[in-house]
Amino acid sequence: MKLAAIYHRPESEMAFLYDSQTMHIRLRTAKDDVKAVQLLHGDPYSLRSLAGIKPPFYTKPTPMKKILSDDLYDYWQIAVTEPKKRLAYAFDITGADGTRTVYTDRGYLQPDDHAALNDLNTYFRMPFFQEIDMFHAPEWVKKTVWYQIFPERFANGDQSNDPAGTKKWNANDHPGRQDFYGGDLQGVLDHLDHLQALGVNGIYFNPLFKAPSNHKYDTEDYYQIDPHFGDAALFKEVVAQAHKRGIKVMLDAVFNHIGDKSPQWQDVLKNGQNSKYADWFHVNKFPATYTPTKNFEFTPDATYDTFDYTPHMPKLNTANPAVQDYLLGIAKYWIEEFDIDAWRLDVANEIDHHFWKRFHQETMALKPDFYILGEIWHTSQAWLNGDEFSGVMNYSYTGAILDHFINHRLSAERMIDQLSNQLMKYRDQTNQMMFNVLDSHDTARIMTQAHDNRDLVKQTFAFTFLQPGTPSIYYGTEYGMDGDNDPDCRKPMNWVPDDDGQDMFTFFKKLVALRRNNADLIEGGMVVLKVLPTGLVEISRMGAGKVLTGIFNTTNLPIKCLSTGRLLLSQGVQDHQLMPNGFVITMK
Amino acid sequence: MKLAAIYHRPESEMAFLYDSQTMHIRLRTAKDDVKAVQLLHGDPYSLRSLAGIKPPFYTKPTPMKKILSDDLYDYWQIAVTEPKKRLAYAFDITGADGTRTVYTDRGYLQPDDHAALNDLNTYFRMPFFQEIDMFHAPEWVKKTVWYQIFPERFANGDQSNDPAGTKKWNANDHPGRQDFYGGDLQGVLDHLDHLQALGVNGIYFNPLFKAPSNHKYDTEDYYQIDPHFGDAALFKEVVAQAHKRGIKVMLDAVFNHIGDKSPQWQDVLKNGQNSKYADWFHVNKFPATYTPTKNFEFTPDATYDTFDYTPHMPKLNTANPAVQDYLLGIAKYWIEEFDIDAWRLDVANEIDHHFWKRFHQETMALKPDFYILGEIWHTSQAWLNGDEFSGVMNYSYTGAILDHFINHRLSAERMIDQLSNQLMKYRDQTNQMMFNVLDSHDTARIMTQAHDNRDLVKQTFAFTFLQPGTPSIYYGTEYGMDGDNDPDCRKPMNWVPDDDGQDMFTFFKKLVALRRNNADLIEGGMVVLKVLPTGLVEISRMGAGKVLTGIFNTTNLPIKCLSTGRLLLSQGVQDHQLMPNGFVITMK
Repeated sequence: MKLAAIYHRPESEMAFLYDSQTMHIRLRTAKDDVKAVQLLHGDPYSLRSLAGIKPPFYTKPTPMKKILSDDLYDYWQIAVTEPKKRLAYAFDITGADGTRTVYTDRGYLQPDDHAALNDLNTYFRMPFFQEIDMFHAPEWVKKTVWYQIFPERFANGDQSNDPAGTKKWNANDHPGRQDFYGGDLQGVLDHLDHLQALGVNGIYFNPLFKAPSNHKYDTEDYYQIDPHFGDAALFKEVVAQAHKRGIKVMLDAVFNHIGDKSPQWQDVLKNGQNSKYADWFHVNKFPATYTPTKNFEFTPDATYDTFDYTPHMPKLNTANPAVQDYLLGIAKYWIEEFDIDAWRLDVANEIDHHFWKRFHQETMALKPDFYILGEIWHTSQAWLNGDEFSGVMNYSYTGAILDHFINHRLSAERMIDQLSNQLMKYRDQTNQMMFNVLDSHDTARIMTQAHDNRDLVKQTFAFTFLQPGTPSIYYGTEYGMDGDNDPDCRKPMNWVPDDDGQDMFTFFKKLVALRRNNADLIEGGMVVLKVLPTGLVEISRMGAGKVLTGIFNTTNLPIKCLSTGRLLLSQGVQDHQLMPNGFVITMK
Repeated sequence: MKLAAIYHRPESEMAFLYDSQTMHIRLRTAKDDVKAVQLLHGDPYSLRSLAGIKPPFYTKPTPMKKILSDDLYDYWQIAVTEPKKRLAYAFDITGADGTRTVYTDRGYLQPDDHAALNDLNTYFRMPFFQEIDMFHAPEWVKKTVWYQIFPERFANGDQSNDPAGTKKWNANDHPGRQDFYGGDLQGVLDHLDHLQALGVNGIYFNPLFKAPSNHKYDTEDYYQIDPHFGDAALFKEVVAQAHKRGIKVMLDAVFNHIGDKSPQWQDVLKNGQNSKYADWFHVNKFPATYTPTKNFEFTPDATYDTFDYTPHMPKLNTANPAVQDYLLGIAKYWIEEFDIDAWRLDVANEIDHHFWKRFHQETMALKPDFYILGEIWHTSQAWLNGDEFSGVMNYSYTGAILDHFINHRLSAERMIDQLSNQLMKYRDQTNQMMFNVLDSHDTARIMTQAHDNRDLVKQTFAFTFLQPGTPSIYYGTEYGMDGDNDPDCRKPMNWVPDDDGQDMFTFFKKLVALRRNNADLIEGGMVVLKVLPTGLVEISRMGAGKVLTGIFNTTNLPIKCLSTGRLLLSQGVQDHQLMPNGFVITMK
């Protein structure tokens, strides 16, 4: 048996409270190396303290189930409970070669090492089931399909607040970095019916606060809606109207850095070390200076820490309690005064964990079902233990989908390996909270990535909508808009779709409905991913006696496909053949 | 190469800030499977943002060092810095079989996969060096040798406060569970000179607060020194006099449960669900009841959660903010009013993490170099990430030492495997904060474990004092006291030692001095553990051009031993032979 490949970690994604009474416990073993795993488990004190309890303290070994595999590993899982809420456990492992070992907190033991197995200090422990430490997954998020709005480009509902030099609204334009098109909150309000028709029930807004740029990531005033977008009253109305339609609202919190036009940074520039904001930033050497570069964007020699290398975005010192209070005041203001439902946290990984723990505590105290979404592109375990974020933007996960479906860089098998590997990096309820984006204001649009192959885009979305995690549609994708990397992906919304656009809308409407109607199964159910012998990719979601199955042809050839069950949605099915880019989703 | 055995985890004991500028990064590989590991590392934004930076973004691969091994794994480590405080990294691994792979946040890559290696999202990340998130190791703890006092049995300095029925002070008594001997704080005050002569510079007090039992773990009033021990003024004097002698003071916080005689629990018994303390506990069903058992100690059917199965210790509900405030008020009171330096946390693992994070924040705010020691017997990574405990009672570590030196259950090689494995479970500075106990009020005394073999006890202590972590002497061990499991290990202190006792004291005095004089090296230095070809066990501690070496004969036969360097301490050396139970500690 390959002992060196076996892995478990107490109080992590490998051992966690799923609900107040139930622990989920995982074990990783080398692929195809282990025949069976039994969990030895019991109340650690029963042996020591209760008359009539004889060693071993556990009543009987319980078999674990192999739930997922990737190229290197098999993953085993079990749900267990314990009336006294105290659990000791170990893994009795039988190798494919017939050997047996017991994996414990003190290492590997022979199964007949009774002296060690009767010693409670041998075992892994969940010392007490602490509901307060449990990862909390708000129910509404599991049922949400998001719609991302880049406000300057969604709709211009009020020309009176357009910035000087606003360009004509033209969905075929290729916007420049400094262009303005006049999109605003009135435009959003005017088109809530559109969102309702599409069926989405969450809006993720890119920043709305006052800032000089069109993207507003260089915040000047966190307490003010950008005047070109509208004002507080209008935003309040947007939230109220959205809520009336059952649509949740998520704002973008840019707390890693502030804009260089902010009064705080301007004060530091003016008063240097004597500024009362001197310790709000990371000024490594006063005065704060930098060498302007040709394109005025990046400079390597600023004497203060910035976002990336851009001197326009001085990094905030979130270890300073005054900065914490300031930013948390903002976070709470928009919840308390405007009733927003979620914050998306920009550059979340570069802010300290202490700050995010406070953020979690104070926002959750206002709204127990608040959703906190971190922008992190890499593995995010350190932020997802239950006391910081609800989820992260799941680029690693959707990246594997794109790399198979769209970019053809990954085989179906390798994509499934990567998806399985990602799912096993997080707790089950964390996976339900991940934000699954295929494109955004930071990437080329998926239509462009797919070389305008609409069927391929539909197929990729259909697959993504069946994954654990909460999916998102970037404004305009429902009409098949295209666009290259930033800023081309930020074209003005096309409000006059042609037939292809209308067809795409119809598709999305069905897909969103399918996702929402089956939210319990898609979020809470088991996942089985496989490549069928025919080469088709199959995903099944199972739970409560139901099975939802999606089958996808990601090859270049038609493939025979005999799916059974009630048809929910399909594309490219002809005479029991599934065409390239085709899929069929059924329910049994 | 055995890819499945390779392990790394960002922001954990495998990748952590050691000081504000320096990251320590570790990689685990299968034992003897890998020839070399190079760290690829650089500033993640430099490639994207700076003109003239060409892929790959890292300047040059840096070799990692194999620092420890156990039976299954080799552990590699490196210290790196990055001027912009943002680090991206991956591992370029060359196998013993000559193959190469690059291990990244996205899995294993071919070294020539330039497309992937030029993509920043491929890399592991330390997004920003956050000093506030760094594990903080108070300097004084590294230089501390602790002395544990069980107050009822250390010294009776004031007979006027003896409980009724106090037994005569007799070091040869075998105390019963309910016996009292009259030990008190005046006794401690009277014997501070003894501690100073021994050279210890930290006292760990078992509980001092008012409680019915002799061990005081069933707290009745956390704000009152037990009247049989003294009063607040006397305790203040003990702390002041200890501090005057450079001795720190650690108290025992029993926060998991409260005594059944406490007013809070009595109120619940009296008023049931209507008690204002009803939510201070985990009463699963009102009224709170239990069936008394024969020995009045354990009962399986209490309708409320308890410590272990003892109805006398109802578990506190630390998720209740009122309970948190109450307990934190106590924690702060003894720091603010009495200037204590550390809290030892009883049954720390069964209290929730939220509570401990608050505890950490609020105590550290009062005293930035406060030491927080958790009682946890199993792997404790979840509590040792820098925002809960400074260290834990290191039973797993010292258990391996005892199992080799005293119990002969582990070979020298297996002991070293286990010690190495334990060291690699925690950050370097965490290892410096671990509390290395060989015996305590909860175990048989080491003299008894060693069948009264004084040389063996000295040898075992000598080995333990050279380990990373802060060592402790249980009262009386300096005179060679013995005693079986609790309550026999709690005999009254022997204040009239015989010659053997005096000899033991002389030994401990030298050992404590050695430890304190070389604290920087023993805490901060590198550790090399090995079994020499002759069968001797060798530990080396290296740093700042110095090497401290300890050589131990744990066999039954004399072994040739040619140690060089300045002799610091030895036992059993005859004609270049090291006798059984012998050791020699030198400095070069």
